[in-house]
Amino acid sequence: MEKEISDPTLTVSGQRGPASHERRIQIIKSAHEHFLQYGYKKTSVADLAKAIGVSSAYIYRFFESKQAIGEAICSVVLGKFVVALHELASSDMSASNRLRKLYITLLDMSLEMFFNERKLHDITIAAVEERWCTTTQYHQTKYEVITKIIQDGRASGEFERKTPLDEVVMAIVETLYPFSHPILLQHPILLEQSEPEVLHQRAIAVSNLVLRSLAP
Amino acid sequence: MEKEISDPTLTVSGQRGPASHERRIQIIKSAHEHFLQYGYKKTSVADLAKAIGVSSAYIYRFFESKQAIGEAICSVVLGKFVVALHELASSDMSASNRLRKLYITLLDMSLEMFFNERKLHDITIAAVEERWCTTTQYHQTKYEVITKIIQDGRASGEFERKTPLDEVVMAIVETLYPFSHPILLQHPILLEQSEPEVLHQRAIAVSNLVLRSLAP
Repeated sequence: MEKEISDPTLTVSGQRGPASHERRIQIIKSAHEHFLQYGYKKTSVADLAKAIGVSSAYIYRFFESKQAIGEAICSVVLGKFVVALHELASSDMSASNRLRKLYITLLDMSLEMFFNERKLHDITIAAVEERWCTTTQYHQTKYEVITKIIQDGRASGEFERKTPLDEVVMAIVETLYPFSHPILLQHPILLEQSEPEVLHQRAIAVSNLVLRSLAP
Repeated sequence: MEKEISDPTLTVSGQRGPASHERRIQIIKSAHEHFLQYGYKKTSVADLAKAIGVSSAYIYRFFESKQAIGEAICSVVLGKFVVALHELASSDMSASNRLRKLYITLLDMSLEMFFNERKLHDITIAAVEERWCTTTQYHQTKYEVITKIIQDGRASGEFERKTPLDEVVMAIVETLYPFSHPILLQHPILLEQSEPEVLHQRAIAVSNLVLRSLAP
């Protein structure tokens, strides 16, 4: 039941010049630090150029716009999620256990991102709002991984086969949002209201509910 | 299996003077219109007083703060949700149909609020962020209504009785967020990405999944 899953490398728009150029990577790193400190929305390409000690024109040799730099950073962050999802999909665990682990993995990675890189919040929000291609690919991966797990569980007899596959996958994607959607989860106050342990309890309760719904 | 459900009247903090005072109601109405036009966050009590044609001191005779006015407005909006939830909980429909309708009711009311009162967005967000007591009561009602529906369904034999009731209710509350959480749903771009019909499809898919999980 192997299913082809999209390439984990995220395509990023607005990039120029060789991807591995030393200066290009340096710009991404400096921009990342700058955004962490001052926020994405408040920073212009001119601010960045000044902070890095190059001209704006020089930055434009590598990136079409501020968004292109944001996308490069976002693709690193979301790239980690995509890799983790792929690893989970192709692991040796039963389909039930992979599905259970999907909730905890997404929650833990989201919490880690939130606590360690709180200032990336507005990059993530901008990515969602402006539909950067990186987020589209992340969502596509999520769909593909869930589809694979359900198909495997149907093949192994763990899951029922009556409900249309698309409907099951669509519903499961929705049930993951409270544990992985940047707007919901990274909303600072929501997290402060909910301790990580409580979020874990809820994620487990939802994955149990989903597994009961899949019983043959 | 009748269960006592909390009073639909929402308690609102920071209110002064008689609740039915004509001037008080007029201030709420004017403030509502002013917030719709200019947004909650950008308006001060002094702005409001000027717009209504009274002194700030006069407003403070009825409300302790801007938040107290916001809460009064919010309680009107959320009060509609609370009434609808109560009606649903005590309707004649089977527990399964009530649960199914819960998703559609919350989605439809949220969409209506979103499209008709888009500028109330920041009042709702402020209410969630600052934990106004109105939202706490709304969440409590949601828990109570879901608990009642599950208990009724267990009593009638529609739903399984093995899983702890608390766990089932906790999980169902989570699955409702994508269709009713103001931050997720009212986020303008999210809604633009998702046509109401698509949101309906998803709500139905999730309610079907939840009902499969409840099968005895």
